[in-house]
Amino acid sequence: MIENEIISLITKANKIAILPHVSADGDALGSSLALALALNTLNKKPIIYFEEDIPSIYGFLPGREFVRIYDEKPDKYELVIALDTGDLQRLGKRVEIFNDADMTVNIDHHPTNTYFAQLNLVNTNSAAVGEMIYRLLKKMEINLDRDMATCLYVAIATDTGGFRYGNTTTVTHQITADLINNGVDVSYISQTVFETVSLPKVKLMGKAIENLELFENGKLAVIKITDDLLRSVGAKEEDCEGIVNIGRNIEGVEVAVAIRERPGGELKINFRSKNYVDVSAIANRHSGGGHKRAAGCTIKGDINDVKEMLIKEISEVL
Amino acid sequence: MIENEIISLITKANKIAILPHVSADGDALGSSLALALALNTLNKKPIIYFEEDIPSIYGFLPGREFVRIYDEKPDKYELVIALDTGDLQRLGKRVEIFNDADMTVNIDHHPTNTYFAQLNLVNTNSAAVGEMIYRLLKKMEINLDRDMATCLYVAIATDTGGFRYGNTTTVTHQITADLINNGVDVSYISQTVFETVSLPKVKLMGKAIENLELFENGKLAVIKITDDLLRSVGAKEEDCEGIVNIGRNIEGVEVAVAIRERPGGELKINFRSKNYVDVSAIANRHSGGGHKRAAGCTIKGDINDVKEMLIKEISEVL
Repeated sequence: MIENEIISLITKANKIAILPHVSADGDALGSSLALALALNTLNKKPIIYFEEDIPSIYGFLPGREFVRIYDEKPDKYELVIALDTGDLQRLGKRVEIFNDADMTVNIDHHPTNTYFAQLNLVNTNSAAVGEMIYRLLKKMEINLDRDMATCLYVAIATDTGGFRYGNTTTVTHQITADLINNGVDVSYISQTVFETVSLPKVKLMGKAIENLELFENGKLAVIKITDDLLRSVGAKEEDCEGIVNIGRNIEGVEVAVAIRERPGGELKINFRSKNYVDVSAIANRHSGGGHKRAAGCTIKGDINDVKEMLIKEISEVL
Repeated sequence: MIENEIISLITKANKIAILPHVSADGDALGSSLALALALNTLNKKPIIYFEEDIPSIYGFLPGREFVRIYDEKPDKYELVIALDTGDLQRLGKRVEIFNDADMTVNIDHHPTNTYFAQLNLVNTNSAAVGEMIYRLLKKMEINLDRDMATCLYVAIATDTGGFRYGNTTTVTHQITADLINNGVDVSYISQTVFETVSLPKVKLMGKAIENLELFENGKLAVIKITDDLLRSVGAKEEDCEGIVNIGRNIEGVEVAVAIRERPGGELKINFRSKNYVDVSAIANRHSGGGHKRAAGCTIKGDINDVKEMLIKEISEVL
């Protein structure tokens, strides 16, 4: 069992680095912090290297004392554990730490994982790496405390969209039951992680709704976000994430499109569908990609011309 | 054990009516349908009486063949089971069925329950009546099928705000794990129940954001909804539910207020707070009520005057 081999490596090593993927999300962050907290109880010296600052909504997570923002290559590590990372590119500059290590481990759940480490624990049935770390800690007979449980809860809750995505399984809920039993503050975490929105993002949502248009008897929703509009509400590019879902969530809508103007004449397009349209096929036509229900592409052209073209293309499959 | 007494009544009775509370929500609906489906496997003849039509977002729920919308008093029932109902008023006109029955049972989780039936199973630690019905069916050794699991899942998921509220416990997740094991389609249900929004509601949200104002260094958010605004987007009174949360969820906001104009010069006020302000104290001043973090009241007056008055009152406690 690879899990046992990993545990044996951890037992032997003292200097251990943990590397989540770049732009760490709740799963990458929560899994890394939980593992560091657990290793610390074994008197190991774990350090988590992040590529960038931790997003403010995760500021409440315990285990920050083990975190370093990557600056320059540190001394050699005996053991490096990559978490939630599909391939080496996703380690960014920190790949230097990985390449320099005596032993490397890769714990991940992405189907695209490239098995880039010496030991690779890849479970694509896990909704979150947080589930895999939970099982590893149980196998190591570590006493889960409230801090570790909180980190793992955030990992699992975020990667399942708050237990809403299709990746949520019986095991997901069984593990979460145990985490709550260890003292997780469900209400506080849910409010902080899922419900807090910045003022510019709220204003952007308002403008997006104002500009939202329906076509094809309400089956197609189109949201146009110009660069001027983005700047008028003080929003940043990252605030556009999820805006396309405003259209998708409207009753009767099958396909939603968000067209975002970027400086330089490039248009970034997001597609979502609800039940039957394969939006990845439309994205593929424009050298984009994705899944049946969520896809994207980049097109050069005038925003209104591109909008009309996409309406035409989508109307043919509605 | 009251549960055993209830099971013994069910075993003896043939003609059984199930009564959820008026304006049935996901828990009342899901619990009722799951119980009817289970009783049907025991060759009972269960009928669920609703006071009004089932909301369209719950249209996918199985067990509709057992549902009647209350019209006129039916023949006497041997056993009537009230579900998720704190007191007799919450049965509306259907109290006639209840009063006429040979035996009555009350299964509920509200702390305010008045123990109005002959047998009362009240568990205020249950996040949803769905949890209580799950345990009852297990005790009755009923084989949970996919339809029953789906109904119970909806009951539990809705009453916990999608596993986000503080009432979500270890038991909640343990039960949900078993329900998913019985074939619940998590992704479809989550999308239908939690993410689908009507076009007028989306438009109303856009207008609410447009009108949202911040005061007291961004700690107080105020949303004003005039009757004209409501009508301009084709929204109904019920679409105003939750609008106040747009303000509460903004980063840095402690208190959010939504002021809604009603025809006749009445203003309906909703208050929410995040961490420390007791908004029920403010609502109480105006003969309203509620909890520390969510309260409401009705005030007569000019919408702008009332807004200024509330800003002043709230600024004193911020």
